[in-house]
Amino acid sequence: MAWAFPNLGFRFALQRIVAKRRVSPSLTAAGARVAARRGILTCTNKRPLICGDRQQQGLRNDAVVLQKKAFLGSQIRRLHTKEMNEEQLSSLKVDQKRLMEDLHYTCQWGTGEKWGEAPTETGMARLALSDTDKQARDWFVETAKELGCNVTVDAMGNTFAVRPGLNNDKPPTFAGSHLDTQPTGGRYDGILGIHAGIEMLKVLNDNWVETQFPVGVVNWTNEEGARFPMSMSASGVWAGSIPLEVAHNLREVHPGTATMASELSRISYLGNTPCSYTAMPMAAHFELHIEQGPLLEITNKKIGVVKGVQAYKWLTVKVRGRDTHTGTTDLKSRADALLTASKLILHSHKLATANGALASTGILNLKPGSTNTVPGEVTFSLDIRASKDETVAKMIDLVERDFPKIAAGEDIGALNEGCTPGLPLTVSITHDFDSPATYFHQRCIEAVNEAAHATLGPDGKSLVMEMTSGAGHDSVYASKRCPTSMIFVPCRDGVSHNPAEFTKEEDCALGAQVLLQSVLRFDRQRE
Amino acid sequence: MAWAFPNLGFRFALQRIVAKRRVSPSLTAAGARVAARRGILTCTNKRPLICGDRQQQGLRNDAVVLQKKAFLGSQIRRLHTKEMNEEQLSSLKVDQKRLMEDLHYTCQWGTGEKWGEAPTETGMARLALSDTDKQARDWFVETAKELGCNVTVDAMGNTFAVRPGLNNDKPPTFAGSHLDTQPTGGRYDGILGIHAGIEMLKVLNDNWVETQFPVGVVNWTNEEGARFPMSMSASGVWAGSIPLEVAHNLREVHPGTATMASELSRISYLGNTPCSYTAMPMAAHFELHIEQGPLLEITNKKIGVVKGVQAYKWLTVKVRGRDTHTGTTDLKSRADALLTASKLILHSHKLATANGALASTGILNLKPGSTNTVPGEVTFSLDIRASKDETVAKMIDLVERDFPKIAAGEDIGALNEGCTPGLPLTVSITHDFDSPATYFHQRCIEAVNEAAHATLGPDGKSLVMEMTSGAGHDSVYASKRCPTSMIFVPCRDGVSHNPAEFTKEEDCALGAQVLLQSVLRFDRQRE
Ligand SMILES: [Zn+2]
Ligand SMILES: [Zn+2]
Repeated sequence: MAWAFPNLGFRFALQRIVAKRRVSPSLTAAGARVAARRGILTCTNKRPLICGDRQQQGLRNDAVVLQKKAFLGSQIRRLHTKEMNEEQLSSLKVDQKRLMEDLHYTCQWGTGEKWGEAPTETGMARLALSDTDKQARDWFVETAKELGCNVTVDAMGNTFAVRPGLNNDKPPTFAGSHLDTQPTGGRYDGILGIHAGIEMLKVLNDNWVETQFPVGVVNWTNEEGARFPMSMSASGVWAGSIPLEVAHNLREVHPGTATMASELSRISYLGNTPCSYTAMPMAAHFELHIEQGPLLEITNKKIGVVKGVQAYKWLTVKVRGRDTHTGTTDLKSRADALLTASKLILHSHKLATANGALASTGILNLKPGSTNTVPGEVTFSLDIRASKDETVAKMIDLVERDFPKIAAGEDIGALNEGCTPGLPLTVSITHDFDSPATYFHQRCIEAVNEAAHATLGPDGKSLVMEMTSGAGHDSVYASKRCPTSMIFVPCRDGVSHNPAEFTKEEDCALGAQVLLQSVLRFDRQRE
Repeated sequence: MAWAFPNLGFRFALQRIVAKRRVSPSLTAAGARVAARRGILTCTNKRPLICGDRQQQGLRNDAVVLQKKAFLGSQIRRLHTKEMNEEQLSSLKVDQKRLMEDLHYTCQWGTGEKWGEAPTETGMARLALSDTDKQARDWFVETAKELGCNVTVDAMGNTFAVRPGLNNDKPPTFAGSHLDTQPTGGRYDGILGIHAGIEMLKVLNDNWVETQFPVGVVNWTNEEGARFPMSMSASGVWAGSIPLEVAHNLREVHPGTATMASELSRISYLGNTPCSYTAMPMAAHFELHIEQGPLLEITNKKIGVVKGVQAYKWLTVKVRGRDTHTGTTDLKSRADALLTASKLILHSHKLATANGALASTGILNLKPGSTNTVPGEVTFSLDIRASKDETVAKMIDLVERDFPKIAAGEDIGALNEGCTPGLPLTVSITHDFDSPATYFHQRCIEAVNEAAHATLGPDGKSLVMEMTSGAGHDSVYASKRCPTSMIFVPCRDGVSHNPAEFTKEEDCALGAQVLLQSVLRFDRQRE
């Protein structure tokens, strides 16, 4: 084989590329085009030997072999990342058509609700460790192997596909994300990141690029936490933040009874490799993801360079009043827990506005729950977020200072203007969950920044913005154990976790291009 | 028998008083005292022949016979309501001890949650047509029969106990209420009204009072609507407002499967008499009830003269926004249905304050209901009440004018001060239920007013107040077909529909006294 790697000491043994019949569409079309353009392939006729035409699938695989033979005969032209100049580096381009075809191809497993006319205009319902998740995983493993990767599955089903580099005694640089979705999710959240990783591998193969160190793609298990109720649970175990036992024993949400361990075993993804950053170290983790928010779209940006993830804190607020009859209790004699909760929710929004933070209530329950009974008890969630820990801490202080006063009847921020003073109520606040701000690694952020600007060129400078991720991602846990950054691309109306989640093809490709370039730029700076 | 009634043409045939062994405690103690005081009974020794002592129950029944014999021998002293002067009328007094002993005696059937140390300090859980409701009904029927009443059960299980008067060709004047309770109800709502009716009968018997026309006590079925979900359903059928079939087919609330008809039949209270104001006409309906609100207590009043029942209207408000991720959606890009609902609830309260009305939200549901998702849809109930129909109509107009504007982002009443303007939302409002104001009958209101002032005396003038009932009662339906009024007594902290519902013994007795006096005053004014 032409792909000779001098150092095989690293755990990733070189595996021969065996061109199988079951490859995904467009496997090497772009590669062939690029190779042809560069003169790597000497075509015997003007039509490229390989194209994306599905009818020629049979031909294609032979073509791979042909390509390799050509490569064998021209070892000089092998590209090393370290030796490439900026022009050469930037000329490595993802194939938008292939990327999107692959992505939609795998969305046959777990297809969700239809929202548009085109066959690809449906959502996804691919719950973690379900049969359809297994099908998508199997595709990932096979495709990665076909691309020459070693595939390792760990005890949480995290699947690491590694393409060996010139020097394999150091950990790989990873592109990672997740193939699982929400029950009413879309085709881009997570899935795009994995496919961009696979596309990266294909571009490297197509262009005979040899990286300094290995590069890989990781599919993290149960990122969404939709089926097993703990999001990012498998990257959390990898990082040592969540005990393996806790994650293994997570029971699927009602009405099922399966656990993560039982389902991992059932679908044959309970690997032997320990789930740990020591057993499977990473040199860096880059994640391409849809923004899941509206900022890029609103500001007409194309690429978000993610510097970190917001801090957030989840509180439960319980308001205690007295349930009384709506007809017989005059306004003065009420201790209306819902009216008070309404004031508190409005006030939390005002505090967020004043402090550049976010405050959101997504759950609210009341008792007793009858049209003609003034609720005596209301419990609601309060999700406070800000890019800095200090801002979140300040918001919590303000909430804890103001809420009891408002409940007691004090007029804060003119909330009581025009109201009838009622009886005093009480408030208790519990702290449920605390996620400090994550700050990504400067080297990774720089790699993404350079990659974005290289991709968009000098005219596209204004299309890049640095931003903070509002949501958690596997990159948060990854960043605890290795340099990490993320790349965001816009999604329509900022909608995510919804079947109609959508990112334009050119934006998907742009993001994948920045991911590819980020990984390569990181790789060539490694010592 | 001394109780000779010249006219027996009316449907209520005179029934002989047969003193049975199974009388309730204290049946005739007060009567004996009063009779002794008036010289009706000639005692052979200084100790009254009859007393409330439970050990002497055997004696007591013989004593009733003895009393009657004495009465037989002194027909001159028979008291006719029309002929009584104010002093004689006011000297007819309920026996507080007997009233409360009877009330607590029947609360053995369906005893609920304990809230205090004393054995009587428990709530009630006597759902309509349950086994315990049957036991209480059986007690009611037997006691009424023992007191010389004819008992009629109609097709809704409404039970009419009628004590014949001097002239029985016209309908009786009724005291009415209900023996059923909420699942976590108290000992006074409804129950006090029935017991005050029974006590009225006892006082009339004890004092050999003959009313001009018959007087009775009615126990209405399923007033609470707690088990069969339509409150006041049986008085509604009687009034012709609810079709019998609808009420019969009411299915008990989850998880049961019984209907009102099946349960009426099971407990043997599916009567042959049609449930109708034509089959069982009433000259008037008086109802003693706990206020179920705090106004009497707060203003240090003892008796509420109820002039009518509030108008009310129930709306369902649906707010539609967009559910988005709490972390990734900045405040500007949100269409937060719960934040908007909070503003609407607060605004409805301000409108109520400005218009002397009540506005209450007792139910609120949101979607999708996750801590990190801004709710895209909120549905809440809105209960609007006022003593006048016009006020309710005005409130509805204001709600329908302002709610869509507030949802669209307009700043009404400075609700948006300090808020971040978000995306517009929409509101839809449906009208679910409409209960126009009920105005009670002037003659009945006057009877209650006179009775209250006669009971409390000139020094107690300030202890009486006219008021509007906030809650519905069987008297609302009764008032559609006969002159009606109600008497309210204070309940602790205005609490009702709660095990800890409590009215002082002296207040129960005061209310019962006003009920007795109201019925008698109404009776003697009838032609
Ligand atoms: Zn994701
Ligand atoms: Zn009641």
